[in-house]
Amino acid sequence: MLVEGKEMRSLWWDDTLKLIDQRKLPFQLKIFEASSVEKVAYAIKKMVVRGAPAIGCAAAYGMALAEDKEKAARMLKRTRPTAHDLFYAVDYMTENEGRIEAAHRYVEDIVEKCRKIGEIGEKLIKHGSRILTHCNAGALATVDWGTALAPIRMAKDKEIFVWVDETRPRLQGLLTSWELKQEGIKHAVIADNAAGYFMKEGEVDMVIVGADRIASNYDVANKIGTYEKAVLAKENGIPFYVAAPISTFDESISDGKKIKIEERDAEEVTKIFDYLPPEIRNPAFDITPAEYITGIITEKGIIKP
Amino acid sequence: MLVEGKEMRSLWWDDTLKLIDQRKLPFQLKIFEASSVEKVAYAIKKMVVRGAPAIGCAAAYGMALAEDKEKAARMLKRTRPTAHDLFYAVDYMTENEGRIEAAHRYVEDIVEKCRKIGEIGEKLIKHGSRILTHCNAGALATVDWGTALAPIRMAKDKEIFVWVDETRPRLQGLLTSWELKQEGIKHAVIADNAAGYFMKEGEVDMVIVGADRIASNYDVANKIGTYEKAVLAKENGIPFYVAAPISTFDESISDGKKIKIEERDAEEVTKIFDYLPPEIRNPAFDITPAEYITGIITEKGIIKP
Repeated sequence: MLVEGKEMRSLWWDDTLKLIDQRKLPFQLKIFEASSVEKVAYAIKKMVVRGAPAIGCAAAYGMALAEDKEKAARMLKRTRPTAHDLFYAVDYMTENEGRIEAAHRYVEDIVEKCRKIGEIGEKLIKHGSRILTHCNAGALATVDWGTALAPIRMAKDKEIFVWVDETRPRLQGLLTSWELKQEGIKHAVIADNAAGYFMKEGEVDMVIVGADRIASNYDVANKIGTYEKAVLAKENGIPFYVAAPISTFDESISDGKKIKIEERDAEEVTKIFDYLPPEIRNPAFDITPAEYITGIITEKGIIKP
Repeated sequence: MLVEGKEMRSLWWDDTLKLIDQRKLPFQLKIFEASSVEKVAYAIKKMVVRGAPAIGCAAAYGMALAEDKEKAARMLKRTRPTAHDLFYAVDYMTENEGRIEAAHRYVEDIVEKCRKIGEIGEKLIKHGSRILTHCNAGALATVDWGTALAPIRMAKDKEIFVWVDETRPRLQGLLTSWELKQEGIKHAVIADNAAGYFMKEGEVDMVIVGADRIASNYDVANKIGTYEKAVLAKENGIPFYVAAPISTFDESISDGKKIKIEERDAEEVTKIFDYLPPEIRNPAFDITPAEYITGIITEKGIIKP
């Protein structure tokens, strides 16, 4: 991805693990250093790094940094429950005795898969398309290229326009806006409430989002609000694509109902306003049933649920 | 409505017009004084007062305060385009030569209609119901009782629970939370993105919202995001009610497509984050087609579109 005109990744190895601190963006570009598996676990839990593929890559390096690999695996798997890549990466590293070369290979593989997702997905984007995306499934979330943003990056000469849901509560839409700005791709940020409005007005040609976990019947767990946008897309006859590497598929789960939804701190919702309601509920993800998904763009082609 | 245990209204006449400043709530209870039609116009435009019926009441007093009634009518009608009550109230005052007694009558009539909406709507609420509402259609928006909140207020002994959409960009859900807290009604505030999730989880029994304008085919203009929640309610088999006085119906408009949607300042979206995307789009309302509406609760009964 481009950052201030230079090629950069969201995390890289430099004797220790270095990560763009996503809690500071888009306000400040700051690098977080994780020199131990404990620091990597902290970075995942506190969302210094976020996005399922990037979490997997950080965890791979966390395994490489650890002395006690079994303890490290347990610690890392406890950080966040939804992203399937996390579990996939930790198991892969266990099979490879936690070697740093295995972590490098894992990361290069993710980057290559995302590039491939971009190539495959780009073909779906017509000249002048207006594409809506939710949350951030960009290079920040996947080390490079992104999943949902990979096809968009590759289609940037097609005079496209991107509608960016601000994505409350954590406003990851701002990360997407920051990435698109770096690439010079035209876009507008909107309140999540306005996505349906622009769909109904005929101003959205397609939707592309990422995924945190995909059940074997193709139900998709992704950032809270994804389900809402999928229902609205279907209602308005707009294609709704999910872009994700095959590592996101969890064959052990038959359908979305069996995916445990993480509920995060109330503070994520309340911190933009200085008022404490008697109760806050803050589910971080939701499930989009396969019936609302036009296709899942993977590195191996497009899967039609 | 109860405010700190005492009965209060959102606006009242005390030689001049006094209004609860809704820009300061729920953080601070402050009274705004409007001693001229210019100040009333300012209060409507800047959303010191908001909610279609309350805007109408403020405008009625604005007409009473003015020397030049024709000029006042033009000024008030230019403040905000969506709320039908505004135009209805100004025309009513013009017919009554802008007399203060007419303004009082107008306001008492609104309060009585809202009370009646509460009585009629309360019968739709079963014991233990979990009701979702969007934006604030409470006493703040209507001088007293509210429209969507009137049935909820009257059902408060039925062990109900209210899901309150935070309602970005302006977060009027916090006004709803503030009102419900004053009345001791159990509720939780959620990100707008989570409304669909809780519907799909079977945790929402019904939806009640207000309306800014209703076309003659019963399409409803209301706060941005209302359309999204209506589609999701239908998808999940949840009754979706609109509560509004008859003055909200605009017989001159055949359907929702002909209602002009106000687009407000980008700053409403950006002010919670200190980052400026290249573009912000901020439609303040959307249209909910009649097909998604189970019933419109009015002071004269329930209209089924």
